Amino acid sequence: MFDAKKETERIVDFIRNYYKENNLKGAVLGISGGKDSAVVAALLVKAIGVENVVGITMSCESKEEDKTDAKIVADKYGFELINIDLTETYHAFKKQIHDLNVDEKMLVDSDINIKPRLRMSANYYVAAMYTHIKGAPYIVAGTSNKCELYVGYFTKGGDSTYDIGVLNNLTVDEVIAVGEYLEVPDAVLHKTPSDGLSGKSDEDKLGVKYKDIAKYMNGEELEEETKEKIARLHRNAHHKFNIPVYNK
Amino acid sequence: MFDAKKETERIVDFIRNYYKENNLKGAVLGISGGKDSAVVAALLVKAIGVENVVGITMSCESKEEDKTDAKIVADKYGFELINIDLTETYHAFKKQIHDLNVDEKMLVDSDINIKPRLRMSANYYVAAMYTHIKGAPYIVAGTSNKCELYVGYFTKGGDSTYDIGVLNNLTVDEVIAVGEYLEVPDAVLHKTPSDGLSGKSDEDKLGVKYKDIAKYMNGEELEEETKEKIARLHRNAHHKFNIPVYNK
Repeated sequence: MFDAKKETERIVDFIRNYYKENNLKGAVLGISGGKDSAVVAALLVKAIGVENVVGITMSCESKEEDKTDAKIVADKYGFELINIDLTETYHAFKKQIHDLNVDEKMLVDSDINIKPRLRMSANYYVAAMYTHIKGAPYIVAGTSNKCELYVGYFTKGGDSTYDIGVLNNLTVDEVIAVGEYLEVPDAVLHKTPSDGLSGKSDEDKLGVKYKDIAKYMNGEELEEETKEKIARLHRNAHHKFNIPVYNK
Repeated sequence: MFDAKKETERIVDFIRNYYKENNLKGAVLGISGGKDSAVVAALLVKAIGVENVVGITMSCESKEEDKTDAKIVADKYGFELINIDLTETYHAFKKQIHDLNVDEKMLVDSDINIKPRLRMSANYYVAAMYTHIKGAPYIVAGTSNKCELYVGYFTKGGDSTYDIGVLNNLTVDEVIAVGEYLEVPDAVLHKTPSDGLSGKSDEDKLGVKYKDIAKYMNGEELEEETKEKIARLHRNAHHKFNIPVYNK
Protein backbone atom coordinates (compact mmCIF):
# COMPACT_ATOMS: atom_id res chain seq x y z
CA MET A 1 0.00 0.00 0.00
CA PHE A 2 1.32 3.40 -1.02
CA ASP A 3 1.85 5.63 2.02
CA ALA A 4 1.63 9.22 0.71
CA LYS A 5 2.90 10.84 3.91
CA LYS A 6 5.93 8.60 4.20
CA GLU A 7 6.71 8.84 0.49
CA THR A 8 6.46 12.63 0.58
CA GLU A 9 8.95 12.74 3.45
CA ARG A 10 11.33 10.44 1.60
CA ILE A 11 11.17 12.54 -1.59
CA VAL A 12 11.75 15.71 0.43
CA ASP A 13 14.80 14.08 2.04
CA PHE A 14 16.09 12.97 -1.34
CA ILE A 15 15.88 16.51 -2.74
CA ARG A 16 17.32 18.09 0.39
CA ASN A 17 20.28 15.68 0.48
CA TYR A 18 21.10 16.23 -3.17
CA TYR A 19 21.05 19.99 -2.63
CA LYS A 20 23.25 19.74 0.44
CA GLU A 21 25.78 17.39 -1.16
CA ASN A 22 26.14 19.63 -4.20
CA ASN A 23 25.89 23.06 -2.55
CA LEU A 24 22.85 23.97 -4.61
CA LYS A 25 20.53 26.82 -3.81
CA GLY A 26 17.41 26.94 -5.94
CA ALA A 27 15.15 25.21 -8.42
CA VAL A 28 13.43 26.34 -11.58
CA LEU A 29 10.53 24.48 -13.13
CA GLY A 30 7.83 25.02 -15.69
CA ILE A 31 4.40 25.31 -14.07
CA SER A 32 2.00 23.97 -16.66
CA GLY A 33 -1.17 24.24 -14.62
CA GLY A 34 -1.30 20.44 -14.40
CA LYS A 35 -0.80 18.14 -11.44
CA ASP A 36 2.78 16.95 -12.02
CA SER A 37 4.43 20.36 -11.92
CA ALA A 38 2.19 21.39 -9.00
CA VAL A 39 3.26 18.36 -6.97
CA VAL A 40 6.95 18.87 -7.79
CA ALA A 41 6.71 22.56 -6.85
CA ALA A 42 5.05 21.69 -3.53
CA LEU A 43 7.77 19.11 -2.81
CA LEU A 44 10.52 21.59 -3.65
CA VAL A 45 9.00 24.23 -1.39
CA LYS A 46 9.09 21.72 1.48
CA ALA A 47 12.62 20.54 0.63
CA ILE A 48 14.56 23.72 -0.15
CA GLY A 49 12.33 26.54 1.04
CA VAL A 50 9.77 28.65 -0.77
CA GLU A 51 12.24 31.51 -1.36
CA ASN A 52 14.38 29.20 -3.53
CA VAL A 53 11.68 27.95 -5.89
CA VAL A 54 10.98 29.71 -9.17
CA GLY A 55 8.06 28.63 -11.33
CA ILE A 56 7.70 29.69 -14.96
CA THR A 57 4.60 29.76 -17.09
CA MET A 58 5.51 29.46 -20.73
CA SER A 59 2.56 30.13 -22.97
CA CYS A 60 3.12 29.29 -26.58
CA GLU A 61 -0.15 29.70 -28.44
CA SER A 62 -1.59 27.74 -25.54
CA LYS A 63 -4.68 27.89 -23.37
CA GLU A 64 -5.02 30.95 -21.10
CA GLU A 65 -6.64 28.62 -18.55
CA ASP A 66 -3.30 26.89 -17.92
CA LYS A 67 -1.75 30.19 -16.88
CA THR A 68 -4.60 30.80 -14.43
CA ASP A 69 -4.12 27.35 -12.94
CA ALA A 70 -0.37 27.95 -12.69
CA LYS A 71 -1.14 31.05 -10.64
CA ILE A 72 -3.44 29.04 -8.37
CA VAL A 73 -0.51 26.71 -7.63
CA ALA A 74 2.00 29.54 -7.06
CA ASP A 75 -0.43 31.37 -4.78
CA LYS A 76 -1.18 28.23 -2.80
CA TYR A 77 2.50 27.54 -2.00
CA GLY A 78 3.78 31.11 -2.19
CA PHE A 79 6.68 30.64 -4.62
CA GLU A 80 7.73 33.18 -7.24
CA LEU A 81 6.05 32.76 -10.61
CA ILE A 82 7.39 34.44 -13.71
CA ASN A 83 5.82 34.51 -17.15
CA ILE A 84 7.78 33.99 -20.33
CA ASP A 85 5.53 33.98 -23.33
CA LEU A 86 7.19 31.94 -26.06
CA THR A 87 4.67 32.73 -28.79
CA GLU A 88 6.81 35.43 -30.45
CA THR A 89 9.92 33.28 -30.20
CA TYR A 90 8.08 30.43 -31.85
CA HIS A 91 6.77 32.74 -34.60
CA ALA A 92 10.25 34.13 -35.26
CA PHE A 93 11.49 30.57 -35.65
CA LYS A 94 8.58 29.65 -37.93
CA LYS A 95 9.39 32.64 -40.13
CA GLN A 96 12.80 31.11 -40.86
CA ILE A 97 11.16 27.79 -41.69
CA HIS A 98 8.69 29.46 -44.04
CA ASP A 99 11.66 30.95 -45.88
CA LEU A 100 12.51 27.34 -46.82
CA ASN A 101 9.19 27.16 -48.72
CA VAL A 102 7.92 24.07 -46.96
CA ASP A 103 4.23 23.19 -47.08
CA GLU A 104 2.69 23.93 -43.67
CA LYS A 105 1.11 20.45 -43.68
CA MET A 106 4.58 18.95 -43.37
CA LEU A 107 5.17 20.72 -40.05
CA VAL A 108 2.58 19.14 -37.76
CA ASP A 109 4.91 16.96 -35.71
CA SER A 110 7.70 19.51 -35.84
CA ASP A 111 5.38 22.15 -34.43
CA ILE A 112 4.17 20.05 -31.53
CA ASN A 113 7.63 19.07 -30.38
CA ILE A 114 9.43 22.38 -30.73
CA LYS A 115 7.33 23.92 -27.97
CA PRO A 116 8.57 21.63 -25.16
CA ARG A 117 12.11 22.26 -26.48
CA LEU A 118 11.68 26.01 -26.31
CA ARG A 119 10.31 25.55 -22.78
CA MET A 120 13.33 23.48 -21.78
CA SER A 121 15.56 26.23 -23.20
CA ALA A 122 13.69 28.85 -21.18
CA ASN A 123 13.91 26.77 -17.98
CA TYR A 124 17.68 26.54 -18.31
CA TYR A 125 17.96 30.18 -19.30
CA VAL A 126 16.19 31.22 -16.12
CA ALA A 127 18.16 28.75 -13.96
CA ALA A 128 21.47 30.22 -15.18
CA MET A 129 20.08 33.73 -14.72
CA TYR A 130 19.07 33.09 -11.10
CA THR A 131 22.41 31.43 -10.47
CA HIS A 132 24.02 34.75 -11.42
CA ILE A 133 21.54 36.93 -9.57
CA LYS A 134 21.64 34.92 -6.35
CA GLY A 135 25.29 33.92 -6.60
CA ALA A 136 24.57 30.22 -6.03
CA PRO A 137 23.41 27.36 -8.26
CA TYR A 138 19.83 26.97 -9.42
CA ILE A 139 18.92 23.76 -11.25
CA VAL A 140 16.00 22.63 -13.41
CA ALA A 141 13.53 20.17 -11.87
CA GLY A 142 11.84 17.51 -14.00
CA THR A 143 8.17 16.66 -13.67
CA SER A 144 7.65 13.49 -15.75
CA ASN A 145 5.91 10.65 -13.96
CA LYS A 146 6.49 6.90 -14.28
CA CYS A 147 3.47 6.25 -16.53
CA GLU A 148 4.39 8.95 -19.05
CA LEU A 149 7.97 7.79 -19.12
CA TYR A 150 7.01 4.15 -19.64
CA VAL A 151 5.11 4.88 -22.83
CA GLY A 152 7.59 7.53 -24.01
CA TYR A 153 5.13 10.37 -23.68
CA PHE A 154 7.73 13.14 -23.58
CA THR A 155 9.88 15.13 -25.95
CA LYS A 156 13.56 14.24 -26.19
CA GLY A 157 15.46 17.43 -25.43
CA GLY A 158 12.22 18.94 -24.13
CA ASP A 159 10.50 17.93 -20.90
CA SER A 160 12.93 15.00 -20.63
CA THR A 161 15.92 17.30 -20.08
CA TYR A 162 16.34 18.39 -16.44
CA ASP A 163 18.79 18.24 -13.55
CA ILE A 164 16.77 16.33 -10.96
CA GLY A 165 13.97 13.81 -11.50
CA VAL A 166 11.35 13.87 -8.79
CA LEU A 167 8.36 11.83 -9.98
CA ASN A 168 10.09 9.41 -12.36
CA ASN A 169 9.20 6.41 -10.24
CA LEU A 170 5.70 7.39 -9.17
CA THR A 171 2.64 6.29 -11.14
CA VAL A 172 -0.11 8.80 -11.85
CA ASP A 173 -2.16 7.45 -8.93
CA GLU A 174 0.80 7.85 -6.61
CA VAL A 175 1.45 11.40 -7.84
CA ILE A 176 -2.18 12.22 -7.09
CA ALA A 177 -1.90 10.64 -3.62
CA VAL A 178 1.17 12.76 -2.85
CA GLY A 179 -0.67 15.78 -4.29
CA GLU A 180 -3.64 15.15 -2.01
CA TYR A 181 -1.35 14.87 0.99
CA LEU A 182 0.29 18.18 -0.03
CA GLU A 183 -3.13 19.76 -0.60
CA VAL A 184 -2.65 20.59 -4.25
CA PRO A 185 -5.85 22.45 -5.26
CA ASP A 186 -8.48 20.09 -6.70
CA ALA A 187 -8.91 22.07 -9.93
CA VAL A 188 -5.28 21.33 -10.73
CA LEU A 189 -4.86 17.89 -9.21
CA HIS A 190 -7.89 16.38 -10.90
CA LYS A 191 -7.75 18.23 -14.21
CA THR A 192 -7.66 16.01 -17.30
CA PRO A 193 -3.96 15.71 -18.26
CA SER A 194 -3.16 17.43 -21.54
CA ASP A 195 -0.03 18.89 -23.09
CA GLY A 196 -1.95 22.09 -23.79
CA LEU A 197 -0.49 22.03 -27.28
CA SER A 198 -2.40 19.55 -29.38
CA GLY A 199 -5.92 20.36 -28.14
CA LYS A 200 -6.33 16.71 -27.12
CA SER A 201 -6.00 15.07 -23.72
CA ASP A 202 -2.91 12.95 -23.12
CA GLU A 203 -5.04 9.83 -22.86
CA ASP A 204 -6.78 10.56 -26.17
CA LYS A 205 -3.43 11.00 -27.83
CA LEU A 206 -1.94 7.88 -26.31
CA GLY A 207 -5.04 5.75 -26.82
CA VAL A 208 -4.65 4.29 -23.32
CA LYS A 209 -5.47 5.44 -19.80
CA TYR A 210 -2.75 6.31 -17.29
CA LYS A 211 -4.51 4.07 -14.75
CA ASP A 212 -4.11 1.18 -17.17
CA ILE A 213 -0.43 1.92 -17.69
CA ALA A 214 0.02 1.77 -13.90
CA LYS A 215 -1.91 -1.53 -13.78
CA TYR A 216 0.23 -2.92 -16.59
CA MET A 217 3.43 -1.99 -14.78
CA ASN A 218 2.10 -3.54 -11.58
CA GLY A 219 1.20 -6.77 -13.38
CA GLU A 220 -2.53 -6.36 -12.66
CA GLU A 221 -5.40 -7.70 -14.76
CA LEU A 222 -6.07 -5.88 -18.05
CA GLU A 223 -7.76 -6.55 -21.38
CA GLU A 224 -5.44 -8.16 -23.90
CA GLU A 225 -5.89 -5.30 -26.38
CA THR A 226 -4.93 -2.67 -23.79
CA LYS A 227 -1.88 -4.69 -22.79
CA GLU A 228 -0.76 -4.89 -26.39
CA LYS A 229 -1.22 -1.15 -26.93
CA ILE A 230 0.88 -0.32 -23.88
CA ALA A 231 3.56 -2.83 -24.82
CA ARG A 232 3.70 -1.34 -28.32
CA LEU A 233 4.00 2.25 -27.03
CA HIS A 234 6.80 1.15 -24.73
CA ARG A 235 8.64 -0.66 -27.54
CA ASN A 236 8.27 2.34 -29.84
CA ALA A 237 9.78 4.58 -27.17
CA HIS A 238 12.91 2.44 -26.91
CA HIS A 239 14.93 4.87 -29.07
CA LYS A 240 14.16 7.70 -26.68
CA PHE A 241 16.01 5.97 -23.86
CA ASN A 242 18.70 4.09 -25.74
CA ILE A 243 20.81 6.34 -27.90
CA PRO A 244 23.07 4.22 -30.09
CA VAL A 245 26.72 5.22 -29.83
CA TYR A 246 29.61 3.90 -31.87
CA ASN A 247 32.20 1.99 -29.84
CA LYS A 248 35.62 1.08 -31.11
CA MET B 1 47.86 2.11 -33.45
CA PHE B 2 44.69 3.78 -34.73
CA ASP B 3 43.81 2.54 -38.22
CA ALA B 4 41.73 5.33 -39.81
CA LYS B 5 40.62 3.26 -42.80
CA LYS B 6 39.46 0.32 -40.71
CA GLU B 7 37.80 2.54 -38.13
CA THR B 8 35.97 4.47 -40.85
CA GLU B 9 34.63 1.23 -42.28
CA ARG B 10 33.49 0.07 -38.86
CA ILE B 11 31.71 3.35 -38.14
CA VAL B 12 30.01 3.23 -41.53
CA ASP B 13 28.85 -0.33 -40.78
CA PHE B 14 27.58 0.74 -37.37
CA ILE B 15 25.49 3.56 -38.86
CA ARG B 16 24.24 1.41 -41.74
CA ASN B 17 23.20 -1.42 -39.44
CA TYR B 18 21.34 0.89 -37.10
CA TYR B 19 19.46 2.40 -40.04
CA LYS B 20 18.60 -1.00 -41.44
CA GLU B 21 17.45 -2.46 -38.10
CA ASN B 22 15.19 0.53 -37.46
CA ASN B 23 13.95 1.25 -40.97
CA LEU B 24 15.38 4.74 -40.93
CA LYS B 25 15.91 6.87 -43.99
CA GLY B 26 17.80 10.07 -43.37
CA ALA B 27 19.96 12.12 -41.04
CA VAL B 28 19.96 15.76 -40.07
CA LEU B 29 22.90 17.47 -38.45
CA GLY B 30 24.16 20.93 -37.72
CA ILE B 31 27.15 21.84 -39.87
CA SER B 32 29.18 24.24 -37.77
CA GLY B 33 32.09 24.69 -40.13
CA GLY B 34 34.31 22.73 -37.73
CA LYS B 35 35.88 19.30 -38.09
CA ASP B 36 33.49 17.19 -36.00
CA SER B 37 30.35 17.91 -37.98
CA ALA B 38 32.32 17.64 -41.24
CA VAL B 39 33.58 14.17 -40.33
CA VAL B 40 30.13 12.99 -39.19
CA ALA B 41 28.57 14.31 -42.41
CA ALA B 42 31.20 12.52 -44.52
CA LEU B 43 30.57 9.28 -42.59
CA LEU B 44 26.81 9.60 -43.02
CA VAL B 45 27.17 10.18 -46.76
CA LYS B 46 29.15 6.92 -47.00
CA ALA B 47 26.76 5.01 -44.76
CA ILE B 48 23.28 6.07 -45.89
CA GLY B 49 23.83 7.86 -49.19
CA VAL B 50 24.31 11.52 -49.99
CA GLU B 51 20.63 11.99 -50.92
CA ASN B 52 19.62 11.18 -47.34
CA VAL B 53 21.89 13.62 -45.52
CA VAL B 54 20.68 17.11 -44.63
CA GLY B 55 23.09 19.62 -43.12
CA ILE B 56 21.91 22.80 -41.42
CA THR B 57 23.84 25.97 -40.77
CA MET B 58 22.37 27.81 -37.83
CA SER B 59 23.83 31.26 -37.47
CA CYS B 60 22.94 33.00 -34.26
CA GLU B 61 24.90 36.24 -34.06
CA SER B 62 27.82 34.07 -35.10
CA LYS B 63 30.78 34.37 -37.46
CA GLU B 64 29.96 34.52 -41.18
CA GLU B 65 33.16 32.49 -41.76
CA ASP B 66 31.56 29.41 -40.19
CA LYS B 67 28.78 29.49 -42.76
CA THR B 68 31.35 29.67 -45.58
CA ASP B 69 33.19 26.68 -44.13
CA ALA B 70 29.91 24.77 -43.80
CA LYS B 71 29.35 25.33 -47.51
CA ILE B 72 32.85 24.03 -48.29
CA VAL B 73 31.93 20.80 -46.48
CA ALA B 74 28.53 20.45 -48.17
CA ASP B 75 30.06 21.12 -51.61
CA LYS B 76 32.85 18.62 -51.00
CA TYR B 77 30.45 15.75 -50.19
CA GLY B 78 27.44 16.95 -52.16
CA PHE B 79 24.77 16.80 -49.46
CA GLU B 80 21.91 19.26 -49.12
CA LEU B 81 22.66 22.25 -46.93
CA ILE B 82 19.91 24.46 -45.59
CA ASN B 83 20.28 27.70 -43.66
CA ILE B 84 18.19 28.54 -40.62
CA ASP B 85 19.27 31.80 -39.10
CA LEU B 86 18.37 31.74 -35.40
CA THR B 87 19.29 35.35 -34.69
CA GLU B 88 15.72 36.65 -34.84
CA THR B 89 14.44 33.74 -32.79
CA TYR B 90 17.06 34.46 -30.17
CA HIS B 91 16.19 38.16 -30.16
CA ALA B 92 12.47 37.41 -29.79
CA PHE B 93 13.30 35.24 -26.80
CA LYS B 94 15.58 37.90 -25.30
CA LYS B 95 12.78 40.45 -25.62
CA GLN B 96 10.67 38.35 -23.24
CA ILE B 97 13.58 38.16 -20.81
CA HIS B 98 14.08 41.93 -20.94
CA ASP B 99 10.44 42.31 -19.94
CA LEU B 100 11.48 40.71 -16.63
CA ASN B 101 13.78 43.72 -16.00
CA VAL B 102 16.90 41.67 -15.43
CA ASP B 103 20.33 43.30 -15.66
CA GLU B 104 22.02 42.18 -18.90
CA LYS B 105 25.16 41.31 -16.92
CA MET B 106 23.25 38.48 -15.26
CA LEU B 107 22.62 36.80 -18.60
CA VAL B 108 26.13 35.88 -19.74
CA ASP B 109 25.94 32.12 -19.10
CA SER B 110 22.29 31.96 -20.06
CA ASP B 111 23.08 33.57 -23.41
CA ILE B 112 25.89 31.20 -24.28
CA ASN B 113 23.92 28.07 -23.56
CA ILE B 114 20.61 28.97 -25.14
CA LYS B 115 22.14 28.98 -28.61
CA PRO B 116 23.06 25.27 -28.67
CA ARG B 117 19.56 24.57 -27.32
CA LEU B 118 17.91 26.54 -30.11
CA ARG B 119 20.13 24.67 -32.56
CA MET B 120 19.06 21.33 -31.11
CA SER B 121 15.44 22.45 -31.45
CA ALA B 122 16.02 23.38 -35.08
CA ASN B 123 17.76 20.05 -35.82
CA TYR B 124 14.76 18.12 -34.50
CA TYR B 125 12.33 20.44 -36.23
CA VAL B 126 13.97 19.76 -39.57
CA ALA B 127 14.26 16.01 -38.89
CA ALA B 128 10.49 15.76 -38.23
CA MET B 129 9.83 17.94 -41.29
CA TYR B 130 11.88 15.71 -43.59
CA THR B 131 10.25 12.65 -42.08
CA HIS B 132 6.92 14.07 -43.28
CA ILE B 133 8.19 15.23 -46.65
CA LYS B 134 9.99 11.98 -47.47
CA GLY B 135 7.53 9.69 -45.72
CA ALA B 136 10.26 7.85 -43.79
CA PRO B 137 12.19 8.59 -40.58
CA TYR B 138 15.00 11.12 -40.40
CA ILE B 139 17.01 11.28 -37.18
CA VAL B 140 19.44 13.76 -35.65
CA ALA B 141 23.14 12.84 -35.64
CA GLY B 142 25.41 13.90 -32.78
CA THR B 143 28.92 15.23 -33.34
CA SER B 144 30.54 15.38 -29.88
CA ASN B 145 33.92 13.68 -29.59
CA LYS B 146 35.41 11.73 -26.69
CA CYS B 147 37.62 14.58 -25.43
CA GLU B 148 34.82 17.14 -25.31
CA LEU B 149 32.55 14.66 -23.59
CA TYR B 150 35.17 13.73 -20.99
CA VAL B 151 35.49 17.31 -19.76
CA GLY B 152 31.79 18.08 -20.13
CA TYR B 153 32.31 20.58 -22.91
CA PHE B 154 28.75 20.47 -24.20
CA THR B 155 25.35 21.89 -23.38
CA LYS B 156 22.82 19.63 -21.70
CA GLY B 157 19.74 19.67 -23.93
CA GLY B 158 21.85 21.28 -26.65
CA ASP B 159 24.57 19.52 -28.63
CA SER B 160 24.26 16.56 -26.23
CA THR B 161 20.76 15.71 -27.44
CA TYR B 162 20.72 13.55 -30.57
CA ASP B 163 19.55 10.19 -31.88
CA ILE B 164 22.84 8.59 -32.86
CA GLY B 165 26.33 9.21 -31.48
CA VAL B 166 29.07 8.81 -34.03
CA LEU B 167 32.30 10.23 -32.55
CA ASN B 168 31.63 9.73 -28.84
CA ASN B 169 34.49 7.26 -28.48
CA LEU B 170 37.03 8.93 -30.74
CA THR B 171 39.60 11.39 -29.40
CA VAL B 172 40.26 14.61 -31.29
CA ASP B 173 43.37 13.06 -32.91
CA GLU B 174 41.34 10.08 -34.04
CA VAL B 175 38.59 12.31 -35.44
CA ILE B 176 41.26 14.18 -37.42
CA ALA B 177 42.74 10.88 -38.68
CA VAL B 178 39.31 9.75 -39.88
CA GLY B 179 38.80 13.20 -41.38
CA GLU B 180 42.09 12.95 -43.28
CA TYR B 181 41.13 9.54 -44.60
CA LEU B 182 37.77 10.97 -45.73
CA GLU B 183 39.54 13.99 -47.26
CA VAL B 184 37.80 16.64 -45.18
CA PRO B 185 39.11 19.96 -46.54
CA ASP B 186 42.15 21.21 -44.58
CA ALA B 187 40.65 24.62 -43.82
CA VAL B 188 37.92 22.82 -41.87
CA LEU B 189 39.83 19.86 -40.47
CA HIS B 190 42.66 21.92 -39.02
CA LYS B 191 40.75 25.00 -37.97
CA THR B 192 41.12 25.96 -34.30
CA PRO B 193 38.07 24.48 -32.55
CA SER B 194 35.69 27.12 -31.24
CA ASP B 195 32.00 27.19 -30.38
CA GLY B 196 31.63 30.31 -32.53
CA LEU B 197 29.61 31.84 -29.71
CA SER B 198 31.98 33.09 -27.06
CA GLY B 199 34.68 34.55 -29.33
CA LYS B 200 37.24 32.27 -27.67
CA SER B 201 38.70 28.97 -28.82
CA ASP B 202 37.52 25.84 -27.03
CA GLU B 203 40.99 25.27 -25.59
CA ASP B 204 41.17 28.83 -24.24
CA LYS B 205 37.82 28.37 -22.58
CA LEU B 206 38.70 24.98 -21.13
CA GLY B 207 42.21 25.96 -20.11
CA VAL B 208 43.55 22.63 -21.42
CA LYS B 209 44.46 21.25 -24.83
CA TYR B 210 42.42 18.50 -26.48
CA LYS B 211 45.66 16.61 -27.14
CA ASP B 212 46.32 16.62 -23.41
CA ILE B 213 42.84 15.34 -22.65
CA ALA B 214 43.49 12.45 -25.04
CA LYS B 215 46.84 11.77 -23.36
CA TYR B 216 45.19 11.85 -19.94
CA MET B 217 42.54 9.35 -21.02
CA ASN B 218 45.26 7.11 -22.51
CA GLY B 219 47.28 7.25 -19.28
CA GLU B 220 50.23 8.97 -20.99
CA GLU B 221 52.77 11.30 -19.31
CA LEU B 222 51.51 14.78 -18.46
CA GLU B 223 52.41 17.63 -16.13
CA GLU B 224 50.80 17.31 -12.73
CA GLU B 225 49.00 20.67 -13.09
CA THR B 226 47.44 19.68 -16.41
CA LYS B 227 46.33 16.34 -14.99
CA GLU B 228 44.65 18.09 -12.09
CA LYS B 229 42.86 20.54 -14.37
CA ILE B 230 41.47 17.76 -16.53
CA ALA B 231 40.44 15.69 -13.50
CA ARG B 232 38.66 18.74 -12.07
CA LEU B 233 36.80 19.46 -15.33
CA HIS B 234 35.72 15.83 -15.47
CA ARG B 235 34.52 15.87 -11.84
CA ASN B 236 32.62 19.10 -12.41
CA ALA B 237 30.85 17.57 -15.40
CA HIS B 238 29.56 14.64 -13.34
CA HIS B 239 26.09 16.21 -13.01
CA LYS B 240 25.76 16.40 -16.79
CA PHE B 241 25.91 12.62 -17.07
CA ASN B 242 24.28 11.51 -13.85
CA ILE B 243 20.85 12.95 -13.37
CA PRO B 244 19.63 12.16 -9.86
CA VAL B 245 16.22 10.51 -9.82
CA TYR B 246 14.11 9.69 -6.79
CA ASN B 247 13.56 5.96 -6.26
CA LYS B 248 10.98 4.51 -3.90
